[in-house]
Amino acid sequence: MDDKFRKSLQFTAEIIEKSLEEILLPSPEVDKILNDAMRYSVLGGGKRLRPFLAIECSSFFDIDNEDIIKISSAIELLHVYSLVHDDLPAIDNDDLRRGKPSSHKYFDEATAILVGDGLQTLAFEILSGSFKSIEPKNQIELVNLFSNMVGNKGMVGGQAIDIRSSQDKGLSLDDLLKMYKMKTANLISFACQAGAIISNADDLRRGALRNFGDNLGLAFQITDDILDVVGDSGIIGKKTGSDLKNNKTTFLDYYDIDQSRLEINKYCDYSISSLSVFDEIPSTLVDVVNFVKEREF
Amino acid sequence: MDDKFRKSLQFTAEIIEKSLEEILLPSPEVDKILNDAMRYSVLGGGKRLRPFLAIECSSFFDIDNEDIIKISSAIELLHVYSLVHDDLPAIDNDDLRRGKPSSHKYFDEATAILVGDGLQTLAFEILSGSFKSIEPKNQIELVNLFSNMVGNKGMVGGQAIDIRSSQDKGLSLDDLLKMYKMKTANLISFACQAGAIISNADDLRRGALRNFGDNLGLAFQITDDILDVVGDSGIIGKKTGSDLKNNKTTFLDYYDIDQSRLEINKYCDYSISSLSVFDEIPSTLVDVVNFVKEREF
Repeated sequence: MDDKFRKSLQFTAEIIEKSLEEILLPSPEVDKILNDAMRYSVLGGGKRLRPFLAIECSSFFDIDNEDIIKISSAIELLHVYSLVHDDLPAIDNDDLRRGKPSSHKYFDEATAILVGDGLQTLAFEILSGSFKSIEPKNQIELVNLFSNMVGNKGMVGGQAIDIRSSQDKGLSLDDLLKMYKMKTANLISFACQAGAIISNADDLRRGALRNFGDNLGLAFQITDDILDVVGDSGIIGKKTGSDLKNNKTTFLDYYDIDQSRLEINKYCDYSISSLSVFDEIPSTLVDVVNFVKEREF
Repeated sequence: MDDKFRKSLQFTAEIIEKSLEEILLPSPEVDKILNDAMRYSVLGGGKRLRPFLAIECSSFFDIDNEDIIKISSAIELLHVYSLVHDDLPAIDNDDLRRGKPSSHKYFDEATAILVGDGLQTLAFEILSGSFKSIEPKNQIELVNLFSNMVGNKGMVGGQAIDIRSSQDKGLSLDDLLKMYKMKTANLISFACQAGAIISNADDLRRGALRNFGDNLGLAFQITDDILDVVGDSGIIGKKTGSDLKNNKTTFLDYYDIDQSRLEINKYCDYSISSLSVFDEIPSTLVDVVNFVKEREF
């Protein structure tokens, strides 16, 4: 990973960490153990890639920094909820996450279920909360797109297909890609579109950022499949071999690793070329695509 | 239960059933098994008390019927998500719900977790969706209050206190009432306030409906505790004795049944008298309070 990009990612991660820390400050209104468990699950880990994308993709528009940081934090909370529930014994049964025992191992299953439930609600609470300069009409659209991306037609639906791919006879390549789009690319794509929506950007620009996110999301999920096979568990922060253990259909059932790399490159190229409608493409967005292409974690 | 009231409750339940049925129509965009599991969990059961309250309490204002039915359906979806997750083996481990095997028994645990996750998102999707005549500003306020009522400071937080009351040394009466308010009364109170919010009603009217709902919600939860001990499982549609089995602190640890009945009457009286700011109180709201007071299911 390019050193300049690493610093840039790290810089955003610190801003998001601070924002998440504030959101999850202990309060007499929130049960202490639940709050502790949320803090444990959310703070001190993760690349914060989705927030990074939300912030960088908002640079095409004139957006208040605080506003986009808030939205980015909500996206990350939603993402962590999905990880906490995915790790549960009844789903992927993963004991390690971001280099630490997963939430149901460190606390217990009941707490992990509630942590996920509460993080989802908290994401919506923040997105529907107060902002410095977002029109209510645009804010409602943001919340509605978010719910679409992460619900039955999106992330949760993709997860449902995913768990059945391990109980079932497997997925066709088409269904696998559809599942990747729903489970992974939708939230990434939402992050990329958020700035356009709150700026009420025209359809051309929105579509460009949606395509950027969709393709990057697919590439990201395919690299995830590869990392689960060849990755270094110490670097990734979770156990590898989870897909094999859970008997899941992955990209590697259809392509070998070299072919998969070519597909990843293809999606990454689509991703960057989607941005051609903009006069100038920030180098960070080129860098983030290259990061996804070659990532080791 | 008064026959006129029974018919009125039944009438609303049928309208809500139809609305929920439409929301959960099979669609190529939603995984079939997930959708089936959602339909199983949501349709064909329940008193639909929260939708009833939302609709009746909206009669103080000039609100489009379709709009309040949509909001009521979202409230019911959120309520069902909470039941599906509460019933999970790691939480209350209840095998029976609304007279049928609970979702994790009929399907499996992984599916039940995703059903709950997806129903929560769906509730937000509907509330942030299109309405006939709600101002975006009021709609955002509605979504934000909803998230506040059902998240860490509300329902999920109350549930966290509840599960610990069974692992822990128990709850003080104050903490028990706080937990009831969070776990049960908040969503009921939201239902009662929804019409006021989308009509941008003044603080006096909002406060009246909030108090109405808060007190009714407390009374409802205390009757729940009593029904868990003396209720008829065939009528309630779930196994009784669940609180005892899970070693939970309940109202009956502090009051005997006769004393509890007096407390229920007190909260019900507060509830009705909160409505005195309105010129006229619809008889259905008096009836629903009497129903909660004497309910057998």
